[in-house]
Amino acid sequence: MSNQMQQIVLASRPDGSPTLDNFRLENADMPSPGDGEILVAVSHMSLDPYMRGRMDDAKSYAAPVPIGGKMEGGSVGVVLTSNSSAFKEGDHVFGPFGWASHSVANAQMCRKLDPDMASVTTALGVLGMPGLTGWHGLMEYGRPKEGETLVVAAATGPVGSMVGQLAKAKGLRVIGIAGGADKCKTAVDHFGFDVCLDHRAYPDAKSLRAALKEAAPKGVDIYFENVGGKVLDAVLPLMRPFGRIPICGMIAWYNEGGLGENATGAGLTAPKLWRTILVNFLSVNGFIISNHWNRFPEFLAEVAPKVASGEIAVQEDITQGLANAPQAFIDLLTGGNTGKAIVKVG
Amino acid sequence: MSNQMQQIVLASRPDGSPTLDNFRLENADMPSPGDGEILVAVSHMSLDPYMRGRMDDAKSYAAPVPIGGKMEGGSVGVVLTSNSSAFKEGDHVFGPFGWASHSVANAQMCRKLDPDMASVTTALGVLGMPGLTGWHGLMEYGRPKEGETLVVAAATGPVGSMVGQLAKAKGLRVIGIAGGADKCKTAVDHFGFDVCLDHRAYPDAKSLRAALKEAAPKGVDIYFENVGGKVLDAVLPLMRPFGRIPICGMIAWYNEGGLGENATGAGLTAPKLWRTILVNFLSVNGFIISNHWNRFPEFLAEVAPKVASGEIAVQEDITQGLANAPQAFIDLLTGGNTGKAIVKVG
Repeated sequence: MSNQMQQIVLASRPDGSPTLDNFRLENADMPSPGDGEILVAVSHMSLDPYMRGRMDDAKSYAAPVPIGGKMEGGSVGVVLTSNSSAFKEGDHVFGPFGWASHSVANAQMCRKLDPDMASVTTALGVLGMPGLTGWHGLMEYGRPKEGETLVVAAATGPVGSMVGQLAKAKGLRVIGIAGGADKCKTAVDHFGFDVCLDHRAYPDAKSLRAALKEAAPKGVDIYFENVGGKVLDAVLPLMRPFGRIPICGMIAWYNEGGLGENATGAGLTAPKLWRTILVNFLSVNGFIISNHWNRFPEFLAEVAPKVASGEIAVQEDITQGLANAPQAFIDLLTGGNTGKAIVKVG
Repeated sequence: MSNQMQQIVLASRPDGSPTLDNFRLENADMPSPGDGEILVAVSHMSLDPYMRGRMDDAKSYAAPVPIGGKMEGGSVGVVLTSNSSAFKEGDHVFGPFGWASHSVANAQMCRKLDPDMASVTTALGVLGMPGLTGWHGLMEYGRPKEGETLVVAAATGPVGSMVGQLAKAKGLRVIGIAGGADKCKTAVDHFGFDVCLDHRAYPDAKSLRAALKEAAPKGVDIYFENVGGKVLDAVLPLMRPFGRIPICGMIAWYNEGGLGENATGAGLTAPKLWRTILVNFLSVNGFIISNHWNRFPEFLAEVAPKVASGEIAVQEDITQGLANAPQAFIDLLTGGNTGKAIVKVG
């Protein structure tokens, strides 16, 4: 085993959209696990939109990554050394290993994986944080009822595809929004959405709204919010009385100003947003899944068998090599991936 | 009995703040009650902020008042003629009688009052729609817990004073916001708020926020929203994780643009609002009490004894004469009243 590892650190904070020079690939000494810790060789790391937030130093639900600090994130790998009775050498493991080839972590922060049950990469997507986000957000705050209509953007992403498939199974009309005709085809053919609209085909919120109105003639009962921007502006006036909006993200606004005029909410003012919530008796809930890990066992018990049986479809978009993680992350933020974004590290 | 009655109709739709010429006092023929209906001599009518919404023809939770139509609203009065077994002549009654000296209504839409239990005017405020609004909104969506901090504006109004008193009784720190030093004194001395801030003493959201921060050093768990505008802008960044915002109104925005720059949300953009909901895991619920009348018996059983015992204080602001209702309503929208706004009609 080499006594060197590789990691990607935050070189500088982005001004708007991240660029490659915000990241730096570094060599570092191989860390040694302390008591209760494990040393892991990372095989695959996850790329998720929330990581954009960690690059800023604005107040948010988690502390920012410091300049020069390792980019954070969930990964899977194999245990090389264990100082914990919970793991032994060779175990497959999920944990907060960050953007790195190797990592040391407290064993209590890690979860053992059974590679015979499902591919270990599913722990990063459909059976991991994004899948739990879709499941918890839809069930807890969306409260889907048969015959209702749901809209979710980033429809082929790991959150959107989970939301769409669960809602479809509950008897809802499910409308996806995605960037590009190929993704829309994937949403319908692979994930079973009733309709998927290509937001790039609509220049503004108004034209997107007209298309949505046609796709959702009765209006929208649940808008599962993960993008903000133009899509929110388009959907909002279509919300039905007693509608629900779970909010797990707003990727269009993470690089505020970076995605055109509508992304900054030019077409949508705070009073208009607030008034829509009032006059339609909407229930809006922001949430971040790290507050709800207690539901993970219940989620896994319900969803893992459906993944195994193929009832819930999976799609992964795998980039080769840690060095290519920054570009893959930049692509993720502009919708360059189809399916769960993963980097194969080792 | 005269065969003429008086009523106030909507003469024209307001452009921003209503003015007297948006209203017209008219004589009309005395209506005759049909089967199942009652004829009522109105003694007191209610003035409520929601009526501003009915003057516009924008899509809302209720149909607008047509031009030339009688202004709508709840009133109390005495039954003159009854074609319903539920009422007899001389009964005190609450119903949707509108801005009028007399009215006919379906008996099923009316509620008999016991003048020995409480003054009949309480059916317009503390034991009526505004009281129920405060009680239901706080308990259902606010979910108050001992030791938390609550902020409510229009603190001396019938909704705000109900919310503040109920929250105080539950062991919360209760901060009111009101317009003027006299109202703030009423909020503290009469309604028992811990603190009340005079929003007129703060030129902008930022200065109001600084004062709120001092009054709520731990942050705000519940913001009971009935005003929008500058107050929302001030409170929003102070919300604590897992905070709740029940929304029953936004009077500052009813006359959009009419209350200065901050009222239009200039300092508060849609992305900022949306992001705050996400990163603080807020629960935001719009509601209109007409969807929740089924809870009225429970409300009355709980709150009426507290009003009778004086545990819940009452304050009414009574204007004399139907002809003065338009000016009293205009005053209500700019905070001219202290306590529940009522017009003594007959």
